[in-house]
Amino acid sequence: MFNDFKATEDRPVFIQVKDYLKRLIIKGSLQPEQKLPSTRELSLLLSVSRNTVISAYSELENDGFVYAVQGKGSYVAAASAPPVAAAPSCEIDWPSRINGYARQAVELDRMKRGIRAEKNVISFTSIAPDEKLFDLDNVKRAFLDRMAIEGNVLLNYGYAKGYKPLIDYLLNYMEHKGVDLSGKDMLITSGFTEAFDIVLSALRRKEGGSVVCENPTHYTAIKNLKLNGFDITGIPMEHDGINLTELERALTERAYDCAYLIPSYHNPTGIVTSPVKRAAIMHLMARHGIPVIEDGFNEELRYSGSHVSPLIATAGQGNGVIYLGSFSKVLFPGLRVGWVLADRRLIDCLESIKRSRSIHTSTLDQSVLYQYLRNGNLEKYLKKARSEYKRKYEWTKLCCETHLPYKKLSGDGGLHLFVEFEERFDTTALLNACAGQGVIFTPGDMFYTDGGGRHTMRLGFSRVKFEDIERGLEIIGLTARQLIG
Amino acid sequence: MFNDFKATEDRPVFIQVKDYLKRLIIKGSLQPEQKLPSTRELSLLLSVSRNTVISAYSELENDGFVYAVQGKGSYVAAASAPPVAAAPSCEIDWPSRINGYARQAVELDRMKRGIRAEKNVISFTSIAPDEKLFDLDNVKRAFLDRMAIEGNVLLNYGYAKGYKPLIDYLLNYMEHKGVDLSGKDMLITSGFTEAFDIVLSALRRKEGGSVVCENPTHYTAIKNLKLNGFDITGIPMEHDGINLTELERALTERAYDCAYLIPSYHNPTGIVTSPVKRAAIMHLMARHGIPVIEDGFNEELRYSGSHVSPLIATAGQGNGVIYLGSFSKVLFPGLRVGWVLADRRLIDCLESIKRSRSIHTSTLDQSVLYQYLRNGNLEKYLKKARSEYKRKYEWTKLCCETHLPYKKLSGDGGLHLFVEFEERFDTTALLNACAGQGVIFTPGDMFYTDGGGRHTMRLGFSRVKFEDIERGLEIIGLTARQLIG
Repeated sequence: MFNDFKATEDRPVFIQVKDYLKRLIIKGSLQPEQKLPSTRELSLLLSVSRNTVISAYSELENDGFVYAVQGKGSYVAAASAPPVAAAPSCEIDWPSRINGYARQAVELDRMKRGIRAEKNVISFTSIAPDEKLFDLDNVKRAFLDRMAIEGNVLLNYGYAKGYKPLIDYLLNYMEHKGVDLSGKDMLITSGFTEAFDIVLSALRRKEGGSVVCENPTHYTAIKNLKLNGFDITGIPMEHDGINLTELERALTERAYDCAYLIPSYHNPTGIVTSPVKRAAIMHLMARHGIPVIEDGFNEELRYSGSHVSPLIATAGQGNGVIYLGSFSKVLFPGLRVGWVLADRRLIDCLESIKRSRSIHTSTLDQSVLYQYLRNGNLEKYLKKARSEYKRKYEWTKLCCETHLPYKKLSGDGGLHLFVEFEERFDTTALLNACAGQGVIFTPGDMFYTDGGGRHTMRLGFSRVKFEDIERGLEIIGLTARQLIG
Repeated sequence: MFNDFKATEDRPVFIQVKDYLKRLIIKGSLQPEQKLPSTRELSLLLSVSRNTVISAYSELENDGFVYAVQGKGSYVAAASAPPVAAAPSCEIDWPSRINGYARQAVELDRMKRGIRAEKNVISFTSIAPDEKLFDLDNVKRAFLDRMAIEGNVLLNYGYAKGYKPLIDYLLNYMEHKGVDLSGKDMLITSGFTEAFDIVLSALRRKEGGSVVCENPTHYTAIKNLKLNGFDITGIPMEHDGINLTELERALTERAYDCAYLIPSYHNPTGIVTSPVKRAAIMHLMARHGIPVIEDGFNEELRYSGSHVSPLIATAGQGNGVIYLGSFSKVLFPGLRVGWVLADRRLIDCLESIKRSRSIHTSTLDQSVLYQYLRNGNLEKYLKKARSEYKRKYEWTKLCCETHLPYKKLSGDGGLHLFVEFEERFDTTALLNACAGQGVIFTPGDMFYTDGGGRHTMRLGFSRVKFEDIERGLEIIGLTARQLIG
């Protein structure tokens, strides 16, 4: 015994000794009432210092595995029923136990089945921000500032509604986007996805709800709408936003529970809905009494042109818009913070759902984000990020125009472009052919609500190097021409 | 114009000037194509430095609200459709739109209706850890260590399954509790509550599921079981855990979808289920093929006595136990990190649900916790916390014995005690009478699955000062005797 102990670098040695002995006790190699070696003996046997053994024995005593007898030494405590001798093995056939919701969640989980970007592969699949832009020092500063002010508070329970200073900051932020805050309130969530899922869970119907949205649209939204039992009607996109004639026809034909729209840097097309169309959409929605879930997805990333008001500002005093905001794509996705701005009575109810689901959003994330914003870092960061992404956007667009045999190219900025080929073209076949040459992208069909879009693809450029953008699009273009034949 | 600007201390002044002008533009006080004052003029008008105005103008230009003409000055950009003139106001009657789930979430949300602890009130309602024990310096150290190693990674997207180093650490940690890891895997969640809700969402049934649990039990568990449509059968508690005869009878009468058990420091009774009973429970569950959701709720807080294996260790190689762990009550509740340890196939499916609900748990929380554990802080912290809580536990117990006319007192440690009075006694009436005297606690009926427990109460002592524990229990005792009459 004691000859298979090996200390590693990654944890304090006394803890490793403690864990080693704990294992021997639990496994029964050291029996109850058995005397342990003296601290001096064990230190020689394990080649560790005697103080290390003393600390380990003391920890084991604290944990109830060992007891000390004055002047005699340490003994193994009478153990509880040893696990090995215990219950007959119970075998549950889990795949048959899980329900339809869980099976659908697996089925719709594209992340599990997507092509992973191997090393040296040029990947246009991500629309996450470029981590090289992250200003780590300001994040550290924000953390230390906040810890100094109220560290104890940050580490204890917070409120389901969110961290008060952050709520106040974001309310002010939204007011400066032209939002009329009267009658409205805010809930902080763990990012956009939780916000969307909580909203849907409050609006879904047992008999199946219905939603109208842009077609194509954000895949996570399609997934969560389906998981919440919504029947999805997609309305075609035009160069300046959703097709109004089609939208009006749909609204006339059926009473939808809600609409889901991404007015700025629409995912996946990259289109910014024009101000005129925004007003027209809100007219239609008001006339038909349809609540709108507005996805504020990276509207901060506008490179140029005049400002565009979010739909919730366009709605004025109306309470029909549920605005979902997040800085994930703009700042740091690792900070899981999003928000819902909506009618006060609705927020009050969403707050209870949030509490039942995860009590509250990480206070550390919320307070670091708050302090980072308050220190004035967002403006500086946006300036840097916009200028960098704009250069990449222009470059990607130019490379697409030079190399791709596309039919239509869309994207007004943001972190991605959307490409449409001729109707008969199949981008999944194109992906398979390109992957072998070390280039991957996202085929567009997953974004379509009606099984269409097999001839489209999304190109995320935020994390691709300039030279790789050109080389990647050259390969995609050549391969596409070969497939077209 | 420009006479109502007031700079405050809390944000950089140039951002305040920018926001001030943005408001004027959005509200239409500054019209499109209108020339702005020169930077020199505005700096005089607003009593700020000229550099501040230059920065503000530059930000406004970046945001598309203003454009500069070489040698001429800055002008307001052509705005998008102004919000005020836009859509007719849409009024949604939200209370009639939300579904039964949302209404039930509000109804079961005790936090919204509980008596709030005013200042100077002695409150026994909390079972959160005492924030005075928090070792902030070690948390800061952990954050800075981790940021130095992989700051960029921490701020970008992580994995739904969790932060790999933390998973590895916790798997090892669980193995040292005697768990056989073969065929098992782990999912990191935003605390216990999310873990529990995700597990239930995978096991619930459209036609309503069924669960067997201890009676009384954790209120959040009752709430989430109800919200997930489970029919709850509570089995009475005895001094050493659940009543086995009653449990066996229930399992024979009906095929339950799962069991939910809190074997250590049971909430609210504080009872630690004995090793013998643990083995017997697992025998019963294996015989009936019932999966067990084990709530590992603060089992780390054992003050004394030999170690007790969790049910998942008692189950050996069996895959019937879903273990939910968390350090929230032990370390810092603000770090929203919990974990599910269970059959690999089940975890794979829960991972997809987790991804659909919140993408992943805050990487900052996970990595700070990981580094804190790795730095060996848990052991040191537990030593301090246990000794402090043990003193408080002994003291509270003594004060109960001295002052309360109770029938039964339970609690083997942890952060709370549970008191039962004579059957006819009503602790809600007692609370109302005590609240007026500045003392509050949690009436026990909310923890009962069958409407019982009106004669019980839970006393959380972790955050109450020693002198307040005595004074509070004196008042509760006197008032109780008056009510008994």
